[in-house]
Amino acid sequence: MKVFLECLPCLLRQVLDATKTATDDADLRNTIMTEALEMLRGYGSFPNAPTVARGMQRLIKAHTGNADPYAAIKQSDLALALRLLPDVRQQVESRDDSLYWALKAAATGNLLDCAAGTRFDAERFTAEFETLFAVCDDAAFRERLQTAQTLLVIGDNAGETVFDGLLLSQFPHLRRTYAVRSAPAINDATAADALASGLDAYADILPTGCDAPGVLLSECSETFLERFYASDIVISKGQGNLETLSDCPREIFFLLKAKCPAVAGLLGVDLYAYVFRHREYRPDKA
Amino acid sequence: MKVFLECLPCLLRQVLDATKTATDDADLRNTIMTEALEMLRGYGSFPNAPTVARGMQRLIKAHTGNADPYAAIKQSDLALALRLLPDVRQQVESRDDSLYWALKAAATGNLLDCAAGTRFDAERFTAEFETLFAVCDDAAFRERLQTAQTLLVIGDNAGETVFDGLLLSQFPHLRRTYAVRSAPAINDATAADALASGLDAYADILPTGCDAPGVLLSECSETFLERFYASDIVISKGQGNLETLSDCPREIFFLLKAKCPAVAGLLGVDLYAYVFRHREYRPDKA
Repeated sequence: MKVFLECLPCLLRQVLDATKTATDDADLRNTIMTEALEMLRGYGSFPNAPTVARGMQRLIKAHTGNADPYAAIKQSDLALALRLLPDVRQQVESRDDSLYWALKAAATGNLLDCAAGTRFDAERFTAEFETLFAVCDDAAFRERLQTAQTLLVIGDNAGETVFDGLLLSQFPHLRRTYAVRSAPAINDATAADALASGLDAYADILPTGCDAPGVLLSECSETFLERFYASDIVISKGQGNLETLSDCPREIFFLLKAKCPAVAGLLGVDLYAYVFRHREYRPDKA
Repeated sequence: MKVFLECLPCLLRQVLDATKTATDDADLRNTIMTEALEMLRGYGSFPNAPTVARGMQRLIKAHTGNADPYAAIKQSDLALALRLLPDVRQQVESRDDSLYWALKAAATGNLLDCAAGTRFDAERFTAEFETLFAVCDDAAFRERLQTAQTLLVIGDNAGETVFDGLLLSQFPHLRRTYAVRSAPAINDATAADALASGLDAYADILPTGCDAPGVLLSECSETFLERFYASDIVISKGQGNLETLSDCPREIFFLLKAKCPAVAGLLGVDLYAYVFRHREYRPDKA
């Protein structure tokens, strides 16, 4: 998915937030922002927005030495999600269609995204949890579940991970893998964040081999690629993964909140809608 | 007031909105955004954000021939404000302190600002009208009114103008001037917008001589400068005028809603606060 014009102000806000967090030095901030604008000017040469975001993060690291400006925010989001978890689990398990609500809990977790500029608190999570999916291809998902033996979930933000654990726990009969970024990428989950979310109780935790806030298949490890293509079901969380996997050669279920007009437009939903979209792939008909 | 780092994403969003309104041609949009990013990269060489915004507007005009991308939005904001006016006037006139509420109506009008990305409807106006000023230097203003013979109000956005008329109408004993941009500048009011708001019933309508979304004194006409320095009271509306007049050599009353963190921080108020700030000027103590 290309870099949309709508991505440009958002990417610039993102690098500004990260820069302000990474350094208090005014000159350094100016240097980083000037170089970020130079990079952004070449947006047409990037394959997608997460690749630009990764480039900007590298700029910040090169100038400040800070490779993880969002470390504190991630810890705070994780702590909040862990506090919410018992109540959300009780909600999911007490409802008639636990699978639907487990998917919805994991999608609502996609709220925890400082990189998208969304604010978050317990009250908002509870309210948004009750909002139904605008698109929910759960029929196809339930059909796949009847024969599947393996499930891969590709994580997005730290904190959101906690609710992904609730989703993973619904499928004890499957061999489950949870994929994470190989190094800090904005506020995205790494292996350490997945462990802090307790996901090792449900799944193998597998870094993709890529440090972008998305999955750049050309940069992923062979181990990840093998798991990606061989898994019976792949669930991709969030916008960054959608942006980088929207044209990939396999079936995927995209689970996310559409947090920007470009992604909402592409999915054909209203801004801020919740989506569980089955993307079919039939190579013989390509 | 310099270009803050926080201005950069906002300026980029602004030029994107204007570009999308001005042309449907994808190539042209890309050309404009690339050149806008190049201009933005040199933000350190601009004296203030309104000057950057003006440069971007010139880019759009040069590439599309459209000098007024916000024309339709301005008309719509004007129409909405005119519909609200009778009720707001009744509110102002029925309250004990009509002067305070006339100032507050004019400040609340500063909501009508698509350039700042704020949304607006009748319900929101009514709710925000009841929000008190966080800073209100009305004592100094009332003192000046006791001896003043002339008042200059420097307008900001089209639509907001309508409520400025309500403020102007409070001072029938003063010779009143309402200053406007000399040519379209984002959604700012021009002479045509002031006339459409009925301001000629209360004041001389005077273009500043400048087409930036602010007042660049070095570009203003002699007629305006004479009025600016000679008026007993000057009220400056909105952020763009504050950004360009914050260091000018005369006393000013700044009347606005603080719609961005940079301006709120500078004024020492919370984001979105309403402010009526007396800025004194004593050249002998400079």
